[in-house]
Formats: sequence, structure tokens, C-alpha cells
Amino acid sequence: MTMQRIPARIGDALAAVETPALVLDLDVFEHNLDLMANVVRGSGLALRPHAKAHKSPDIAKAQVGRGAVGICCQKVDEAEVFVAAGIADVLVTNEIVAPAKIARLARLAQTATIGVLVDDARNVADLAAAAVQAGGTLHVYVEIDVGSHRCGVAPGEPALALARAIVGSRGLRFRGLHAYHGAAQHLRAPAERQAAIAQASRLAGRTRVLIEAAGIPCPVITGAGTGTWQCERDSSVYTELQPGSYVFMDADYGRNALAPDEHAFEQSLYVLATVMSTPTPERAVVDAGLKALAFDSGPPLVHVARGLTYGKGSDEHGVLDVDPAQAQPQLGERVWLIPGHCDPTVNLYDWIVGMRGERVECVWPIAARGAIG
Amino acid sequence: MTMQRIPARIGDALAAVETPALVLDLDVFEHNLDLMANVVRGSGLALRPHAKAHKSPDIAKAQVGRGAVGICCQKVDEAEVFVAAGIADVLVTNEIVAPAKIARLARLAQTATIGVLVDDARNVADLAAAAVQAGGTLHVYVEIDVGSHRCGVAPGEPALALARAIVGSRGLRFRGLHAYHGAAQHLRAPAERQAAIAQASRLAGRTRVLIEAAGIPCPVITGAGTGTWQCERDSSVYTELQPGSYVFMDADYGRNALAPDEHAFEQSLYVLATVMSTPTPERAVVDAGLKALAFDSGPPLVHVARGLTYGKGSDEHGVLDVDPAQAQPQLGERVWLIPGHCDPTVNLYDWIVGMRGERVECVWPIAARGAIG
Repeated sequence: MTMQRIPARIGDALAAVETPALVLDLDVFEHNLDLMANVVRGSGLALRPHAKAHKSPDIAKAQVGRGAVGICCQKVDEAEVFVAAGIADVLVTNEIVAPAKIARLARLAQTATIGVLVDDARNVADLAAAAVQAGGTLHVYVEIDVGSHRCGVAPGEPALALARAIVGSRGLRFRGLHAYHGAAQHLRAPAERQAAIAQASRLAGRTRVLIEAAGIPCPVITGAGTGTWQCERDSSVYTELQPGSYVFMDADYGRNALAPDEHAFEQSLYVLATVMSTPTPERAVVDAGLKALAFDSGPPLVHVARGLTYGKGSDEHGVLDVDPAQAQPQLGERVWLIPGHCDPTVNLYDWIVGMRGERVECVWPIAARGAIG
Repeated sequence: MTMQRIPARIGDALAAVETPALVLDLDVFEHNLDLMANVVRGSGLALRPHAKAHKSPDIAKAQVGRGAVGICCQKVDEAEVFVAAGIADVLVTNEIVAPAKIARLARLAQTATIGVLVDDARNVADLAAAAVQAGGTLHVYVEIDVGSHRCGVAPGEPALALARAIVGSRGLRFRGLHAYHGAAQHLRAPAERQAAIAQASRLAGRTRVLIEAAGIPCPVITGAGTGTWQCERDSSVYTELQPGSYVFMDADYGRNALAPDEHAFEQSLYVLATVMSTPTPERAVVDAGLKALAFDSGPPLVHVARGLTYGKGSDEHGVLDVDPAQAQPQLGERVWLIPGHCDPTVNLYDWIVGMRGERVECVWPIAARGAIG
């Protein structure tokens, strides 16, 4: 059993980085980190970035160091990695139903603040029993479906019923509503995203009124992603923002049109690839295919493309179409690829190589790579 | 830094397997292994299965134990894993151009039979220098483009020129032609696949004649995949077959129509998932999304579907559409998913759980998971 080979050493020049490698432009990455931290700090809302995007304790610590109240993740496996690395406040933005996983989550709550979502009363009972058994307290949020039609109960009465069940359960502490509109993140036009989050905010806000009218405090409404976070920030309803991809960005987020007042994050994440074959003038083949890049949101873009387009990917190859009007890339030449979708691409790597200019400054473990359970 | 959590222990009942898990039906898997081994043995051709599909030394040994002459893989990182595990004959069906990787490949050839492809004369010189430096011999195959338009020189004279260069290089041994038609594997109609491989065979056969007419022995023509291997077997041109996916199969191969005389392999590979949310009667959500399944060939199929269709996948979720005429799945219920594409799905896991009926018989490490360099 082997870990993925470390593709570079600190101090290496760019030419020494072995490919395919996941590479982070540290200047741009820090710009993105600072921009989000500064803008959210000014808003008075809490920032709880989603660590499912980066799966890296080093990056989580950089976020907490800039004022994030904690992180989000999606899986118990991930939560264990981040708590072990010293992150003291982790919200699992997901329902956890397997008994063994609920038990592990409750044990984590012995040493860290652990939040979790529910959308089913039976699950509330299971979480409570495990928390009592472990002698800790789980923070519980009711997930409401504000338009994504994935998990979550309907806003309004069903959410109130779950809040009552949580409040009445030993071992659980009701914290509020999870109102994430995933489907809104990649609506291309700003007006579409604004309309979707306006509706989500109405639904979440009315549900909070209903819950508080029943005498149950509902301090937190949490949600938002990189595509819509300014809408939730300005909603007067949300209290906490969960963007994740903003640290990296990707080709799919790059296709969103931005309103004039929207903050732009820049591409910091690349897959560095090498040209391994130049069989014809119109074709060059790189060493990064379906196992080096996620294709669910389309193929990668070629950074500084010079007439190159990533056409077809296969397991270990990427075929670049070469514009005949431009110079063909040379055998061994490096090509910088912008992943179509950052989250599942990062999950293919055990290491992320941080570059400062042309020099490797850090090689961070993607410690929660593969933490899918 | 953590490895992926082991999802099961030997002897566990099915209910104890943690999800998402990559699960192998051992009875079907062994049927597939035996069928390919027996049919190819009867043909007189060599079988060199492609290990890029499974990345597992346990499976490679099962193949060699049934008569395979060795294995194929795509990357130096993979070759190192398999040689370390005791596989004595590995063909890297790819061009290797980075100097550090060429050096590692040449070192591997000190202890195992190592083959590699070339499609560029400069690469021949680099391989030869590294082989001489390491004191070993690399087996070299000229890759010809027989229709896939990925890597490879044109058949005929360009291949002869490369063969001459190899024959004239110390440290290299010319073994023959690599004539893999990847694009033919998923042509849906048998007649289309037959026509594609008939053309590939003509091109490879004529190139061999040309090379041998120049006084250069060309003992091996290697290629074929799970979609076309019977065509290459019956071509009178190919001498070695490289199928990989046949051990597992996937939804995409399942969409190929088979001719009456084609051997059918059966689905042995699944992603086992758990229903984590049943928010509405027409929707159930499972815990396996873009990080548990590759989506390049479409979403997974639901095995024994009972009215369930895997609709939209997101990073950690899969939304199942529920036929209202059938019973809704229950919270915590297991769902067996047939991956759209087996190779990149396997690469998401560190472990594969072998089931015999309802019992875990083995948990094999996917030791070359992430070996993408």
C-alpha cells in the first residue's frame, strides 16, 4: 500500500515538479483567502468555509487564522481528520444515519464543537442516543430545502416539528437552520442567482419566525457557496456563510457572469501536466486524464492557452487540439490546466504543491483525500 | 495524513460494510477472470491484462496465476507498485518522457522485464541513455495510431524509422508494435467494432511486414480492450491482448451490443451506498456522489433498480428518482450502484471489499490508487 508519490520538495524549482501535480499559486490563493475574510468580517456575519473543497488542515488553519469561526465538512471521515489536526469547531453539513458513524460523530463531540444536520425525526432520536452514550453534546441544525431539491425538509411546519424534537432531546442542542441552495451556485446570470437566494432567504426567514414564535431560539441560519455568498450576506436573514471553492476557483465557476458589485476570486488551483506526445501538428497529448482531473463539469481549460484546447480526456491522457496558426507545444513542455470542478479534482491528490512564483514554498498533505465515508 | 478508512473486516456481514464502499462480487469476478483466461489460452495468443483498471496486486496475481504473461500499466508510479508486489513482467503502454521518470523506469528494469512505448525518436535516445546508465535493458514497442488519434506514429514508414532507431540503440530491445484502438472499445454495434479492428489489423500487419522486410524481427503486436478483444484475437495479426475492464465491467461497457458469438462478461464491481435522506416520496438521497464515482461516462446505474434511477450527483450526494408506483427506499437502506466507468471509479478508493454471498471474504488494497505519475 502506497501513498501517492510526493511530486515536489520545498525549494524545488518549477521544472522539478513531477506531473501530473496539483499546484497552488500561493499569491492568488492568499488574495482569495484575504478577500473573503475581510469582506465577511465587515458584514458582521460568521464565516465557516467549506473544507470539502480543499480537504487540507493547512488551509483550514489559514481560514481560522483569518477569523473563520470553524469549518464545514460533509463526512464523518473528514470531521475526524480536521478535529485531529486541531480544528475545534466543525459543522458536518449533511445527514449522518449509519449507527457506527453516528457513534463516531458523538465521540468527536467529546473534544470539539460538532454540528450536524437532520431532516428526519428518527435520525434525531439516533443522534440523541449516541450523544448521551458518549457523554457529549451535538449541535444540530434542521436542513430545509430552499430550492436545491436534494436533502432537507420543507420550510415551515416540518422544520418546526424537527426543531421541537431536537429541543426535547437530551444530548442535542438546537442551533438553527441549514439553508444551502446548491443549485443556485452555478446559475450563470447574477439576476438568476439573486432571485434564487431571495426566495431561499424568504423561506428561511419565515421558518425562523415560526420556530421562534414557538419559543425556540434559532440563532443560526447557515448556507451560501462561492456563487451566491454576497446574496446571502445581504439577505438580512443568513447569519453564517459557507463558501468553499473561493480559495481555488475552477472553470465552472469561471463561467458565472458577475454583477458589477460582486467580488471576483481568481484562479489559484491548477493541474500541472506534461506534453508526452506530439504525434501530429494539430495534436499534443498530456499526461493528465480522468484520474488527474474531474470531468463532471466538463474538461479543464488550458491556462495561457496559446491556441491549445483540451479536447478529449481518457484515463491517463488528455488530447490537446492545437491551433495550426500557433506553435505546437514541445515534447516535455509543461501545460497548466484549470480544473473543470475543483472539489472532486482535489480529491484525486494526496498532495498540493504551493508555488511562490517559480519556487515550491510548501507541499501540503490533502489529509482528507478519500475521506468519503 | 490518513489512508482511506478500511470499510470492512474479513468475516463481516454485508450490513457491517461502511459506505460508500467499492465492492466486488467474487463469484462473478472469478467467472470473468476464468472466462478470459480460458478463451485466450485456447487461441494461442498471449494475455497481458491491463492493470490500470484494477490497480490491485492481488488481482494482477490472480491474472498471472491463470496464465497471463504479465500485466500492462500506464504510469511509472503504477509499474513500481506492481514490481514491488512481485509482478515480474510489466508493459507500460505509454510514452514516458520526463527524465526522472525514465530513470526510474530503467532502474525497474534491473529486476523485472519492463516494456515501454515510443512515438518519437528523441524519446528513443533518452530511454537508451537511461537504460545504459542503469545497466539494464528496456523492451520497447513502437506505438502506431490505428484509429484512436491519441498517441502513436502513423503506421508504415514512420514506425519502421523508429524500429531502426531502437534496434540501433544500446540498452533497448525492440519487441514490436503497440496497436491499441481505444476509440473502438465503446462503438455500440458489433459490426462497427469489427470494422474498426479489421482496419487496425490491416495497418498493424502491413507495418510488421515492412519492418520485417527491413530485416528487423517484430515478434509482438499488442493491443485490444474489453470491447474488441475477440476481434484482435481473430485477426491473425495481433499476438497479445490487453483487456482490463473485463474483470469488473461497468455501465458504459454494458451499453455495447454483443454479437451472438461474443463472450459476455458480467458486472462484478459495485459502489455500495446508503440512503441518507428520504425527504419526499419521489426522491431518496444516497451518500455516494462525485467523490465516490467517476461521472465521465455518465451517472451510475442502480442494480436491481426497483424503480430507482440515479439522477443528479453532487460532491457527496446522489439523488435517486423514485418511481411513485414502487415502494420508496428506507432511511439507512443499502443501494448497489454500477459505476459508469470502472477505471477512474476504482482510482477513488484505497480498498476493495470482496464479498462471497453476504460475507466479506477479503479486503484488498488498491495499492496503485493515485499512482498517476
